[in-house]
Amino acid sequence: MAVTFAKRMAGLNRSEIREILKITARPEIISFAGGLPAPELFPVEDIKKVTSDLLDRAGKQVLQYATTEGYQPFRAVIAKHMNEKFQTSVTDDQVTIVSGSQQALDFAGKIFIDEGDVVLLESPSYLGAINAFNAYGPEYVQVATDDDGLIPEDLERVLATTERVKFLYAIPDFQNPTGRTWSLERRKAIMAIVEKYDLPVIEDNPYGELRFNGEIPPSLKSMDKKGLVIFHGTFSKIFAPGLRLGWVAADKRFLEKFITVKQSSDLHTSEFTQRIVYEYMTTCDINGHIEKIMALYKERCQTLIKAMEKHFPPGVKFTHPDGGLFLWVTLPEGVDAGEILVKSVEHNVAFVPGAPFYPNNKKVNTMRLNFSNMPPDRIEEGIKRLGEVLKTYCEQCNIAG
Amino acid sequence: MAVTFAKRMAGLNRSEIREILKITARPEIISFAGGLPAPELFPVEDIKKVTSDLLDRAGKQVLQYATTEGYQPFRAVIAKHMNEKFQTSVTDDQVTIVSGSQQALDFAGKIFIDEGDVVLLESPSYLGAINAFNAYGPEYVQVATDDDGLIPEDLERVLATTERVKFLYAIPDFQNPTGRTWSLERRKAIMAIVEKYDLPVIEDNPYGELRFNGEIPPSLKSMDKKGLVIFHGTFSKIFAPGLRLGWVAADKRFLEKFITVKQSSDLHTSEFTQRIVYEYMTTCDINGHIEKIMALYKERCQTLIKAMEKHFPPGVKFTHPDGGLFLWVTLPEGVDAGEILVKSVEHNVAFVPGAPFYPNNKKVNTMRLNFSNMPPDRIEEGIKRLGEVLKTYCEQCNIAG
Repeated sequence: MAVTFAKRMAGLNRSEIREILKITARPEIISFAGGLPAPELFPVEDIKKVTSDLLDRAGKQVLQYATTEGYQPFRAVIAKHMNEKFQTSVTDDQVTIVSGSQQALDFAGKIFIDEGDVVLLESPSYLGAINAFNAYGPEYVQVATDDDGLIPEDLERVLATTERVKFLYAIPDFQNPTGRTWSLERRKAIMAIVEKYDLPVIEDNPYGELRFNGEIPPSLKSMDKKGLVIFHGTFSKIFAPGLRLGWVAADKRFLEKFITVKQSSDLHTSEFTQRIVYEYMTTCDINGHIEKIMALYKERCQTLIKAMEKHFPPGVKFTHPDGGLFLWVTLPEGVDAGEILVKSVEHNVAFVPGAPFYPNNKKVNTMRLNFSNMPPDRIEEGIKRLGEVLKTYCEQCNIAG
Repeated sequence: MAVTFAKRMAGLNRSEIREILKITARPEIISFAGGLPAPELFPVEDIKKVTSDLLDRAGKQVLQYATTEGYQPFRAVIAKHMNEKFQTSVTDDQVTIVSGSQQALDFAGKIFIDEGDVVLLESPSYLGAINAFNAYGPEYVQVATDDDGLIPEDLERVLATTERVKFLYAIPDFQNPTGRTWSLERRKAIMAIVEKYDLPVIEDNPYGELRFNGEIPPSLKSMDKKGLVIFHGTFSKIFAPGLRLGWVAADKRFLEKFITVKQSSDLHTSEFTQRIVYEYMTTCDINGHIEKIMALYKERCQTLIKAMEKHFPPGVKFTHPDGGLFLWVTLPEGVDAGEILVKSVEHNVAFVPGAPFYPNNKKVNTMRLNFSNMPPDRIEEGIKRLGEVLKTYCEQCNIAG
């Protein structure tokens, strides 16, 4: 008898981002690669205080086994927070806690996808979602996007011509990897199509609150008349990723599936970390904290954009996000961002090439840049070096920069 | 288009134990149902101190994203701890961190099981493992057991006559639900068969250290000449379940699959909780702490056994464990423990009927009793009431108690 693995393992690879991050852990590397929040803003003192009080008051409870759904008062506070930020009207029993929103992506795959089913994605889309869904063997159909988000006509065309579509996965606010946000008109048009086709939608919204210009638009969930939208939220970007806390907000028919899957997958999320964030949200100023994050990221995003305008060859295009953690660079046709990465790492600069964000028809002349994790002087220096690499490459290949 | 779920969802049900636990959360209920550790022994003050020091010293690091494999010094400390307790010789790079050992069960299913593959289980076996594997559509073949553990002749018979066997799942120490421990001779005989057939083994060992009589026998992993044993450990029973921390120890060919699956499932386990336990293990006395747990559970187990001898009808049989959290009761033929549960809940006493621990050929005249979570007077009172329910039932049904 030979040891064999499940067929699904052949389609599962470690994330290219996380493998790049290992290389870039060296301190001399200027990294635009990860999606790491600025650690200098983690509210360490507040966490210390609420944790100490919590252990004094409820140590035995928070260290014990707990319910799969999550700590009920925490679910209520999340519902309230979400409703204020994203114009939704969810109740506490429509919220369940997960161990970071990556877990919600895995669960969505487990709940919906049989081998050969179709998942609709924005083109490009979040690599971590694709990796999570891959475990369940879907086919992907990518729907075209532009600066205003998903293109409704293309979604309708795909739905009219594609069988076995299980859901649309979308990040309407400061999308990963592009940094783009769907316009209000697009949201309305997409939701009309979603309702016409009874199409479940996973609205992944890790960055929506981190908006440094303009107003937060209504979420898809807020327009969800037929209960088709499954909203994924996370504390990783507005609080701290090291606690691994996220949530799913959805109608009962979907939420009960997430809870069933959660129970057999890991019983429940740490009651200890849930209640730390609950205490923080009810006794400290989370919105004031988010304001600080936004101010910092705004400065870093502006620095990045100015540096690219100064140092990149003129043929390079990039998005101008109003929030979030990333922007998206389109290099001249013929440039392979993977080759640029190899050269830029020689100059101690790293980023994520765009190709892995496309399951099909990869556009290799793209790259994702993160602006949340480095101070302005490092951003400026990194872009200067990357600009030199790009100019040299274009000259050598006779590509009009 | 109709909203549809993956086929696997039809086979996934919420755990009967966790549903019973909801009913039994009422304070007046005397519950032998759960597998909850004694919360009065959680080292709350030590956790408070190490957490405060940790946040002072490394707040920014422990609240940030981290590696999928887990905090490297924590993996090293776990390897050392395991080697001392279970006679293994694993290295830090053979250990990866998971969010409780339930997650390791889900991952094992994901890694090995295609629909229709066969998983071998002890008869009976742990309900939570069956629930985790169910998501991947296996068939189960149960191997016969007796008071010395799995019966080698039956394992050999099954392996010689069964196709598509992917792995054996076993709990050799204080098995859940029976409380039985495999003898040394059985371990040797089983490992000889495992090697002959190249059979991967999941050795789930959440309770082995909680031995209050006799010496810890060598683990299967310690006898694993061909690298076939995948060891699952957890901090839920020796420290605190609310932190959701467990580990997998295995050779690289298996461990790298767990890491790949972990990455797409939830990126990584909380760095914060990992480092709290790491600090505790390196600055406090975890073995002294485990001694305290064992003394308490020994007293409770003895109380439970004495109470059953006094109050149960003479036809009832039960195991006499030397450690762990559970024992197993076999009622006279013809008694349905599910019916007994309904009646005993009327008297505010709960337990878990044995049937769900058998995927096939359920023995309904069995039940699992937990002894870790209640003081002796409640155990005595609960067994007295349960004994009355049993006697009345046997009399009414004309069953020889």
